[in-house]
Amino acid sequence: MDEVRVIEIKKSVFADNEMDANALRGELKAKGVYLLNLMSSPGSGKTTTLIRTINLLKDKVRLAVMEADIDSDVDTVKIRKETGVESIQLHTGGMCHLDAEMTRQGLDSLDLEGVDLVILENVGNLVCPAEFDTGAVRNAMILSVPEGDDKPLKYPLMFSVCDLVLVNKTDVMPYFDFSLERCREYVARRNPAAQVIPICARTGEGVEKFAEWLLSEVGNWKKQ
Amino acid sequence: MDEVRVIEIKKSVFADNEMDANALRGELKAKGVYLLNLMSSPGSGKTTTLIRTINLLKDKVRLAVMEADIDSDVDTVKIRKETGVESIQLHTGGMCHLDAEMTRQGLDSLDLEGVDLVILENVGNLVCPAEFDTGAVRNAMILSVPEGDDKPLKYPLMFSVCDLVLVNKTDVMPYFDFSLERCREYVARRNPAAQVIPICARTGEGVEKFAEWLLSEVGNWKKQ
Repeated sequence: MDEVRVIEIKKSVFADNEMDANALRGELKAKGVYLLNLMSSPGSGKTTTLIRTINLLKDKVRLAVMEADIDSDVDTVKIRKETGVESIQLHTGGMCHLDAEMTRQGLDSLDLEGVDLVILENVGNLVCPAEFDTGAVRNAMILSVPEGDDKPLKYPLMFSVCDLVLVNKTDVMPYFDFSLERCREYVARRNPAAQVIPICARTGEGVEKFAEWLLSEVGNWKKQ
Repeated sequence: MDEVRVIEIKKSVFADNEMDANALRGELKAKGVYLLNLMSSPGSGKTTTLIRTINLLKDKVRLAVMEADIDSDVDTVKIRKETGVESIQLHTGGMCHLDAEMTRQGLDSLDLEGVDLVILENVGNLVCPAEFDTGAVRNAMILSVPEGDDKPLKYPLMFSVCDLVLVNKTDVMPYFDFSLERCREYVARRNPAAQVIPICARTGEGVEKFAEWLLSEVGNWKKQ
């Protein structure tokens, strides 16, 4: 396998990110590419979840992955090794989020010919990424059980902007004071339309539901 | 117990945060007040660790706590209920970090007469808070076992600026692929002088070591 491609992301110069994000969505629509923006805290299991999901989807849709990180390349190496799909590393150089222009810098480095689905793994951060529309069709996030079920109370914007909340690491539920019912209630307070799917990326449990959701999303986007 | 005091933090107007942070440290020194800036990811156990630590220290030093959060008051309520020490809530209104001027807004709302130690619980975020000197004497952080031992590779600045890394939730170590040895090695790469103390805030194990470190820090600060 060839070397990891690392894109050093430059600071965005656009003043109106919302307008830029809408323009990017339009361009992706024209190309038939669905972009998912996946966010979470550090260490919630984004990469492990992606590996499981990609391996369920890669024979059904053509996929590419953009791994945003402040510095390291470990996630891209892991994704490529364990799934074989095209994955590039976006280095944000200390920046805590990606906006639409920064996302576009990543997309420009991918060969999108024939690609149906691009997954952007955003910087691990529950605050800043929620403030910037990346141009993705949907935002999804992972909340892991050890973080606690009260996170929608503390990071309201993140939960408001996400259409899907994956509750990961359900296998360690017995060791933590985490109630799925309370979590669903708190998520609904921020975003009544958000879906909550419990998963365990380590064992794979529940991940097929996320894969089905994504497949149906991609299908609808192409049909619209 | 009277109502929770909530301070709505305003955006800082100072251009030179470093200079402002040094000025604030000077003022605190003159008053004999030690300020600790405690950082971590969301859900790593900052508040539980603080409650344990405060209960070990409150008969030895006079303490006050500032709980920074984007929106909720749950941490301040918990700290006051379980320790009885003075605690105020700093609402950052969506801002992802605190700088020295924002920290000063909190300190101005506390009665510092006779207070030896103020602990600032920063916004749960491994990225932005690392970039801003709050004026604290020391930075400490919590890395919890479920987040993974690779975090110093991914969030280098946070680990570079911290003098102390508390590794929390050691009770669930058997259920996660987390090596304390590997963690120590990665932390040392970022900051060879940083101390690593394993703790379990839930059971209290190891927390007395953090309390001792803090007590000795406060003593040295007053003597200097």
